[in-house]
Amino acid sequence: MASIRIPRGTQDILPGEIEKWQLIEEKARELCEKFQYNEIRTPIFEHTELFLRSVGDTTDIVQKEMYTFEDRGERSLTLRPEGTAAVVRSFVENKMFGHAGQPVKLYYMGPMFRYERPQAGRYRQFVQFGVEAIGSNDPAIDAEVIALAMTLYKEMGLKKLKLIINSLGDKESRTAHREALINHFKPRIGEFCTDCQNRLTKNPMRILDCKQDRDHELMKSAPSIIDYLNGDSKKYFEKVQQYLTDLDIAFEVDPNLVRGLDYYNHTAFEIMSEAEGFGAITTLCGGGRYNGLTEEIGGPEAPGIGFALSIERFIAALEAEQIKLPIKEKIDCYLVSLGEEAKDYTVGLLQKLRLAGYSAERDYLDRKIKAQFKAADRANAKYVAILGEDELKVNKINLKSMETGEQTEVQLDTFVEKFTELNK
Amino acid sequence: MASIRIPRGTQDILPGEIEKWQLIEEKARELCEKFQYNEIRTPIFEHTELFLRSVGDTTDIVQKEMYTFEDRGERSLTLRPEGTAAVVRSFVENKMFGHAGQPVKLYYMGPMFRYERPQAGRYRQFVQFGVEAIGSNDPAIDAEVIALAMTLYKEMGLKKLKLIINSLGDKESRTAHREALINHFKPRIGEFCTDCQNRLTKNPMRILDCKQDRDHELMKSAPSIIDYLNGDSKKYFEKVQQYLTDLDIAFEVDPNLVRGLDYYNHTAFEIMSEAEGFGAITTLCGGGRYNGLTEEIGGPEAPGIGFALSIERFIAALEAEQIKLPIKEKIDCYLVSLGEEAKDYTVGLLQKLRLAGYSAERDYLDRKIKAQFKAADRANAKYVAILGEDELKVNKINLKSMETGEQTEVQLDTFVEKFTELNK
Repeated sequence: MASIRIPRGTQDILPGEIEKWQLIEEKARELCEKFQYNEIRTPIFEHTELFLRSVGDTTDIVQKEMYTFEDRGERSLTLRPEGTAAVVRSFVENKMFGHAGQPVKLYYMGPMFRYERPQAGRYRQFVQFGVEAIGSNDPAIDAEVIALAMTLYKEMGLKKLKLIINSLGDKESRTAHREALINHFKPRIGEFCTDCQNRLTKNPMRILDCKQDRDHELMKSAPSIIDYLNGDSKKYFEKVQQYLTDLDIAFEVDPNLVRGLDYYNHTAFEIMSEAEGFGAITTLCGGGRYNGLTEEIGGPEAPGIGFALSIERFIAALEAEQIKLPIKEKIDCYLVSLGEEAKDYTVGLLQKLRLAGYSAERDYLDRKIKAQFKAADRANAKYVAILGEDELKVNKINLKSMETGEQTEVQLDTFVEKFTELNK
Repeated sequence: MASIRIPRGTQDILPGEIEKWQLIEEKARELCEKFQYNEIRTPIFEHTELFLRSVGDTTDIVQKEMYTFEDRGERSLTLRPEGTAAVVRSFVENKMFGHAGQPVKLYYMGPMFRYERPQAGRYRQFVQFGVEAIGSNDPAIDAEVIALAMTLYKEMGLKKLKLIINSLGDKESRTAHREALINHFKPRIGEFCTDCQNRLTKNPMRILDCKQDRDHELMKSAPSIIDYLNGDSKKYFEKVQQYLTDLDIAFEVDPNLVRGLDYYNHTAFEIMSEAEGFGAITTLCGGGRYNGLTEEIGGPEAPGIGFALSIERFIAALEAEQIKLPIKEKIDCYLVSLGEEAKDYTVGLLQKLRLAGYSAERDYLDRKIKAQFKAADRANAKYVAILGEDELKVNKINLKSMETGEQTEVQLDTFVEKFTELNK
């Protein structure tokens, strides 16, 4: 029968690779606890309308990349292309704005889906870790969110990082900038792609982010948002920068930084890898402020900020910097047995070792003793315990340290206690 | 604007509830390490054909419950309704049968999808933890797989558990039983539902599992697989039982246990909760042996066994037994500040505390000092550190233990060191 393959653009994460994922996720959870962000899990799919309203219908994501389908009840559902919309939906639906503990600080970790052309390092299913702080307008929380991402990267060992920040301003600033952009591009909009032509009136800022037209001469001379920030927006942005400096976090202001989603305002940021040979796409993490998004989704006003980072790209950056992760590779004990009765005995003994807290293994292929020793080697066992028919009769078992080669005869019925003593 | 709600039959898992999930998952990972099962992650969706071939086209899952859709490349994809098929697909595709480390022992944890009528405790998206051991025909590994599930439940505190096991036999035994079933039901098959009528020739064992016809008088008198086991199958089943006894795991043999999927043979088992008031559906975990499944998926012969358990039902069982989980509820330190400058200063101080390993928090709502103390109370802070303008000027900060009420004045620039000393 023909074999069935994995769907195009997706990957299995297998033992040997998964340990990196586990380490990053553990570290992220640990930091979130220190930073007081709590986990939230939202469904893998949402009503399609959620993403139309939040991500925005002029974005590539909504126009080209969503996995949208009808369920058996004829609802239009979409596999989530990103995490923020659902977290904000949940914030509104569960009336978290009413909690006393404002801002509500949340994190998520899980698969996202975008139907893109598969290429190196880009998958149709990928995993994001992200945080959202909803309910505060304090620039200190913008700095905290950035600090959390930077701390995670640094504690995993990354050194070649670059943080760029920008301000997209408040509504007033954006309206002024929007007008300037329209005036700038309108006379020659015919020279741009049809996507950009649509963006001109819907969301001209998106033009700055276009991959197709990025070399057009009008791009470089386009009016910068920085020049259109009003007093409040300027002050907010300065405060964020001051806090980042207080936190010893180096950054660059890049007035061209426009995030790929519609809902951002004020602080926007990206973290990039500057490791050599990291490839064309250097962005590891992106985030920003999204005041107004809760209202788009039907809730009350509540300012928010967050980031999302891809675990796939995180691992690629670790590899580019050749960072060796502390992955546990040894097991505590491998049980080798000789003869049917001894073999049966190891079933219970194995369980006792495991219940006492040890990683332990035995043979399940009826292997000869030599092959069992080979398996113990492959499993990187610290100790091998050898039980033969004769030993079983006299209540003994041989314990061999694979590090020192030393061999001891131990009483079988108190083996686990003895093993624990040895491993103190 | 109208608000957008979560898709029907799905749920958000929020702080306050998520901690239970985290504890169970941590414990499962820890046990898998001891039992030497490694994590594997397969995509959320697979080619639809995978489930037709493995789960089987006479099952309710395939006939009524799958989320199937076409992607933009017109491939028929299905959100995975269970985990085994994909793990076996990955085992075959990645040629894991060629590894020296046989059997290959894997675990997975993640969302599964079935379009069922939503009801108490039953969701369209639910989370399964499962293990698969592929490549061994040793009854000791059947016992190990069962022991892993039982150990997980017990270590989380569950006491009211019931394990039932059965053998579905090998091919020869199943063929003999199949014939007996057809002879038994055929004369009166017109009295059964259309699903069962279809099952009669395709897979008559499925009739025993029918929810609609379960009270039909022919059900009770149907021939039992136990009576059709050949010598090898009988011996295999006896060995599994012997090992379970060696492991001190109580069980009952239930000849009516037929698992809901097509691919099982030999050992089948279910773990149920016997807690009072647990509800109508008492099954927590189901599993069994599936020799032959690798070949269905296009790979070489490789015997396998595994189980899957739902985290939702796990939590329901913990609640039914009123088990209190060790959930961490306190944070180490809350920073209270008075005045603009002191407030700014806490941004850096907070980060220092966190980098030193503490969970720490401050106010992000420009609250008055009294409200900040309230927030510290709500966060269950062990310590509150209070920084005013005057203290800042003289390099001091006040530290108050919320447990003893004791207050100390500490030097500000060595606060974190002092805090660490206090917390040793």
